Amino acid sequence: MTSAPADPLISDGQGVWRYRGWLPVDTPISLGEPTTPLLRQTWHGLDVGFKLEGALPTGSFKDRGVAVLASWLVQHGARAAVIDSSGNAGASLAAYCARAGLACHVFAPQSASPGKLRQIAAYGAELHSIAGSRQDVSDAALAHALATGDVYASHAWNPLFLAGTQTFAYEAWEQLGGTAPDAVVLPVGAGTLLLGIIRGYAALHTAGLIDRIPRVYGIQSTACAPLVTDTTEPAPVTVGDTAAEGIRIARPPRGRSILSSVRDTGGQIIAVDDEALWRAHDELRLSGIYVEPTSAIAVAGLASLTNQLTPGTTVLVPITATGLKSPA
Amino acid sequence: MTSAPADPLISDGQGVWRYRGWLPVDTPISLGEPTTPLLRQTWHGLDVGFKLEGALPTGSFKDRGVAVLASWLVQHGARAAVIDSSGNAGASLAAYCARAGLACHVFAPQSASPGKLRQIAAYGAELHSIAGSRQDVSDAALAHALATGDVYASHAWNPLFLAGTQTFAYEAWEQLGGTAPDAVVLPVGAGTLLLGIIRGYAALHTAGLIDRIPRVYGIQSTACAPLVTDTTEPAPVTVGDTAAEGIRIARPPRGRSILSSVRDTGGQIIAVDDEALWRAHDELRLSGIYVEPTSAIAVAGLASLTNQLTPGTTVLVPITATGLKSPA
Repeated sequence: MTSAPADPLISDGQGVWRYRGWLPVDTPISLGEPTTPLLRQTWHGLDVGFKLEGALPTGSFKDRGVAVLASWLVQHGARAAVIDSSGNAGASLAAYCARAGLACHVFAPQSASPGKLRQIAAYGAELHSIAGSRQDVSDAALAHALATGDVYASHAWNPLFLAGTQTFAYEAWEQLGGTAPDAVVLPVGAGTLLLGIIRGYAALHTAGLIDRIPRVYGIQSTACAPLVTDTTEPAPVTVGDTAAEGIRIARPPRGRSILSSVRDTGGQIIAVDDEALWRAHDELRLSGIYVEPTSAIAVAGLASLTNQLTPGTTVLVPITATGLKSPA
Repeated sequence: MTSAPADPLISDGQGVWRYRGWLPVDTPISLGEPTTPLLRQTWHGLDVGFKLEGALPTGSFKDRGVAVLASWLVQHGARAAVIDSSGNAGASLAAYCARAGLACHVFAPQSASPGKLRQIAAYGAELHSIAGSRQDVSDAALAHALATGDVYASHAWNPLFLAGTQTFAYEAWEQLGGTAPDAVVLPVGAGTLLLGIIRGYAALHTAGLIDRIPRVYGIQSTACAPLVTDTTEPAPVTVGDTAAEGIRIARPPRGRSILSSVRDTGGQIIAVDDEALWRAHDELRLSGIYVEPTSAIAVAGLASLTNQLTPGTTVLVPITATGLKSPA
């Protein structure tokens, strides 16, 4: 960390639970969350900081939200949790449930990466592999929750998850010496990281710790871009194929909130195609940064935002998951 | 970190390069190395700290050594590096060479985990898949180096690698509030982490920053245990099958040094079988810690060291690589 601005609510230690004073949890459940690295470099004329979320315990940013959500569930007496996930959120919930002694049911599409499915099973969660659309997966998870009384711990719905992803902003704020970047560029599907980041910076702004909220740019895939719209509602879409499996969300539950929040920051949501995704993936891996394809779409987005991001702009880019998650 | 003992040579920031003042490198090459988490918990009556090296950029402890080695190679004008590796060291060297703009040749056994081989190729390294024994792989790498003049950047031979792994001890020392644990238990094959840890604690001891060096226990596989001997030389062995692919080293180049160093700490080297390895692997994953099989052997070793590690002993256990490296 460049500097650690004094705040009585910031704890010793690193990572998510360093901000426990800002979180609605009494007893943190931890799998060892590092402060994820901020790798700063010039990238096509921009002053970019890649924040490497793959360093988290299960290899994706989802651990921020799940750490807080799982701790809260235990605190409120839950015995079992159920989630629908394309893979990473399920793996994360499975891990924290294993830690906490909660039963865990993960509903995932049959098309999810085999590595992610193996990881979910490794933590002892019960894996329900569902044929059909992503919506079918969600419907099956919800039906299970209603039938059994297990808590529906959807990362897309549960506000505790967003409390956890806010810590991304807190960490970056400390790492940047108590400042915010000009812009944040990240993949957006259900928007749980995007909303957490905006809320995190808003909290820092309200507390008088930064003087402005960064512009936030969400990147979608052209194969599934319900948030690329001029209206206040997500657009109906037909989902196509894309390597960005983590953001293949046709009907994001918090779609209206994502659209208004992004506009309030002065940012924008755009879509790029898989060709641009793979070009960015190549450029990253050949510079030593191995990411899962979904993560590369944010870096592809940088190249499409040249009108918005002028040379010298400081840009924070979450690298949402490690390439070891789904080797490509 | 629990506390950060003042030392003029400790830099701002986290991870390997926080200790750059103690390292023989002018210009660090970084892929964003976090301070790896120290997950403390009671484990069968012991006060254990699992230090999660899977959080490093390529997912294994090898990044500590390679970060320093690759930086040193660039500083000394190298253009290309060659390594023999069962997978993790090769992936790490490939990543840092990609970062540094060095050509990289990785010689690996055909039997290496497919995920590790994909990772090596992803960074743009030239992968040489070698049939035959681990010795055949080393011989091929050395022959390539001699024929081409590329630098032989073997992690097992190069002292710069050990300078990097020493940072494991420095980080743990800060995380434990400026103290050393009673014991360190870890897998040992070529011994590059083990020797780095002992040297790291020795440096802290010489500097008057700790009052004793922890006992170090190395764990081998019964399928390949040249270091389990009462003599001062590694024993000749016939290598059998084991899931602990990362420590399947029949002739560790620094064998004599490993044996004498471990004895000097008051520690010991023992071997456990794959049944114990998988039992530990199960126990870890079902408590939310997903590790590669080689890493689990250290935890299996804990159960065999009950005479040496009495209840309440503080034990530091490197979890050498993430389970995403070779899903099991």
